Amino acid sequence: MSIQTPKNSEIPGYTYGAAGHSPVTLAELEELKASVMFGEKDAALLRRAGELLDGQVEKILDTWYGFVAGQPHLVAHFSRPGGEPIAEYLEAVRSRFGQWIRDTCTRPYDQEWLDYQNEIALRHTPEHKNETDQVGSTRVVPLRHLIALVVPITTTIRPFLAKREESAEKVEAMMEAWLKAVVLQVALWSRPYANEGRW
Amino acid sequence: MSIQTPKNSEIPGYTYGAAGHSPVTLAELEELKASVMFGEKDAALLRRAGELLDGQVEKILDTWYGFVAGQPHLVAHFSRPGGEPIAEYLEAVRSRFGQWIRDTCTRPYDQEWLDYQNEIALRHTPEHKNETDQVGSTRVVPLRHLIALVVPITTTIRPFLAKREESAEKVEAMMEAWLKAVVLQVALWSRPYANEGRW
Ligand code: HEM
Ligand code: HEM
Repeated sequence: MSIQTPKNSEIPGYTYGAAGHSPVTLAELEELKASVMFGEKDAALLRRAGELLDGQVEKILDTWYGFVAGQPHLVAHFSRPGGEPIAEYLEAVRSRFGQWIRDTCTRPYDQEWLDYQNEIALRHTPEHKNETDQVGSTRVVPLRHLIALVVPITTTIRPFLAKREESAEKVEAMMEAWLKAVVLQVALWSRPYANEGRW
Repeated sequence: MSIQTPKNSEIPGYTYGAAGHSPVTLAELEELKASVMFGEKDAALLRRAGELLDGQVEKILDTWYGFVAGQPHLVAHFSRPGGEPIAEYLEAVRSRFGQWIRDTCTRPYDQEWLDYQNEIALRHTPEHKNETDQVGSTRVVPLRHLIALVVPITTTIRPFLAKREESAEKVEAMMEAWLKAVVLQVALWSRPYANEGRW
């Protein structure tokens, strides 16, 4: 984990390895991996992507935060209802978001990972939103925008992967692996949004 | 609509233009388009993609159907519960799926389109699943796999776009426009899955 700065334990509210047990089974995870066509090759491509993205994480976050800040219907969920953005909230989430980029590229997708996926899901819903950072923002990130942000979270990563001297084919392969990883996670995060029996 | 074969009206169960009113507003659609970064440029790229894909629709469907057929947890939703795939069901949906490729590329994303998006959403859930083709299959396509299939539905389209003589940049731009269009629709389709106030 040498590429992870700041140290995990120094990121406020980051509880990887200490989250509650996910109700999603490893067998369900395997099916989902098959649905997004995620295989060993993708895991290896993500590890390489992690090396390329490390050191660029702050710039990636600048891009994503710029995107969210520019859209009132998105920044609302980092704000007091009907009010102003909460600077401490944006800042605290930002550190965990940076760590998420590293986790997505380097962590094995095992039980511990599944458990933290569940925690991230809950942090977007009334179950845990606002709790970690003790803020009074909106109660839920709407499911439709959670799904929609797959696009900016994916397409904006391309220039960061392409910056170092990799072939166009390799960049393309890493992009696909990244897309699979993000869609896989959003599919997992949709669970606490779904009606009984529909997830 | 000259590129559409068979004629829309000849596709059993295809009710574009005659669907119930969507509960989603055009203002909500505009926000979603912003979240997936969908703009006029993408609409134009999709129209070009539509020209390239037309005539290849059956081959694309072969690819997608092969993918679904190969995964028990997916083909189950075209089957009797715990039983065999229903051939008539697979066949009937296939024609509408082909039309959907053309619609995604050529239709304006207006109220009529929004209304049919709502109908497609309902056809994946207990509200309307099995109804159109009068079959006794599973009651719902699970939300997580609906989201997951964004990946195969997107990545497998690339070779079909690349077949005709387009520059790599143009293919890449069309791929992004396609990804945006698919994610936009899946975000819309997630509505009847979501708990009150979470969509
Ligand atoms: C693909 C889409 C998305 C990804 C990958 C993503 C990723 C993340 C990550 C990694 C975190 C921090 C998790 C942790 O605490 O360790 C987070 C938290 C958060 N995200 Fe998202 N997110 C997405 C969509 C959205 C959208 C559409 C919004 C709406 C503006 C949003 C708003 C938030 C908020 C407010 C938090 C803090 C939640 C809390 O703990 O109170 N996210 N997200
Ligand atoms: C991005 C993902 C998906 C897309 C773009 C998609 C697209 C479509 C389209 C266009 C139709 C026909 C709509 C019409 O009647 O005009 C349809 C129906 C259907 N799809 Fe999907 N689909 C997706 C995910 C899935 C998944 C994961 C399954 C699970 C196997 C599935 C199973 C079905 C079934 C069973 C029907 C027939 C529903 C009925 O009874 O009318 N779909 N889909």
